[in-house]
Amino acid sequence: MITREQFVAAQQKARDYLSRVGIVITPAESANIEVADFGLNELDSTGLELVVYLNTERVCSKELILFPRQTCPEHRHPPVAGEPGKEETFRCRWGEVYLYVSGEPALHPRARAPHGREHTYTVWHEVVLRPGEQFTLQPNSLHWFQAGDEGAVVSEFSTRSWDEADIFTDPHIRRTPEVVE
Amino acid sequence: MITREQFVAAQQKARDYLSRVGIVITPAESANIEVADFGLNELDSTGLELVVYLNTERVCSKELILFPRQTCPEHRHPPVAGEPGKEETFRCRWGEVYLYVSGEPALHPRARAPHGREHTYTVWHEVVLRPGEQFTLQPNSLHWFQAGDEGAVVSEFSTRSWDEADIFTDPHIRRTPEVVE
Repeated sequence: MITREQFVAAQQKARDYLSRVGIVITPAESANIEVADFGLNELDSTGLELVVYLNTERVCSKELILFPRQTCPEHRHPPVAGEPGKEETFRCRWGEVYLYVSGEPALHPRARAPHGREHTYTVWHEVVLRPGEQFTLQPNSLHWFQAGDEGAVVSEFSTRSWDEADIFTDPHIRRTPEVVE
Repeated sequence: MITREQFVAAQQKARDYLSRVGIVITPAESANIEVADFGLNELDSTGLELVVYLNTERVCSKELILFPRQTCPEHRHPPVAGEPGKEETFRCRWGEVYLYVSGEPALHPRARAPHGREHTYTVWHEVVLRPGEQFTLQPNSLHWFQAGDEGAVVSEFSTRSWDEADIFTDPHIRRTPEVVE
């Protein structure tokens, strides 16, 4: 859970990133920027800010904003409702992002797992994404990512999102945000 | 068909639009910008420039670049391979775009049908998209769009594209570009 003050500050910071990159969002989208702290109450290290453009039965599109070194923790998207699980593509728009998937682990990974949670990061094959670069994840494959020192803005193109179905390696994670008034 | 010279000039103009908007593409994407003249040889009035980011079995994402008053002619995406037809969302990133779908026709439409081809434009319900605004088309529904006086950059998020299956109202249209050497 995060406090209302942390939530408001993170939303504003996300807006600042988007306007720096020249991405225009509507007033309604701006008011609804999602701040995910994954229930860990350490938003600066484990967290993600999201603008959801659309999420229909078939197609989903979002902008992801990551503050410097902010991490989206390891998870996968299992099959849901007879579909083979979400297929997602991350396209870096600004900054730098380090994406980890299964495969040969990086000898000297650019990202560091958040302090005290290292055991919940199990895939270490590194994909570095700079502006204009993208990577498509196979459904139900483990992945996590971290922004570089400047933060990052990443477009996500995917099949339908069922965030509540995501399976995180860290059992303490809660995907649905809770804001404490 | 268009000449090599027209093709190269349109690609360069599309690159200029993207860099003005701050959208970064890779060298490979830049080299492969698609220039669609729809076989009519009047690219300034009927045409479209495209960067295809991905087109998998399930998800497709593109940037569309329209020069001032350039028109993507009326068409629909029929069912293909047992799927109900492409579902697509247009999100305006820059400029202004006038999208036409079936429904109550606009009394004073902002777009003009390309000269001599007015009879091939049959749906006139107007949706104006400015930066940050978007519209989702139902599969197999007729639509066409035209940029405003400044041109436009539009993101398209959709299910898989089968461009060669598109059905255009104008029987003279050929979707697959031909460049004359």
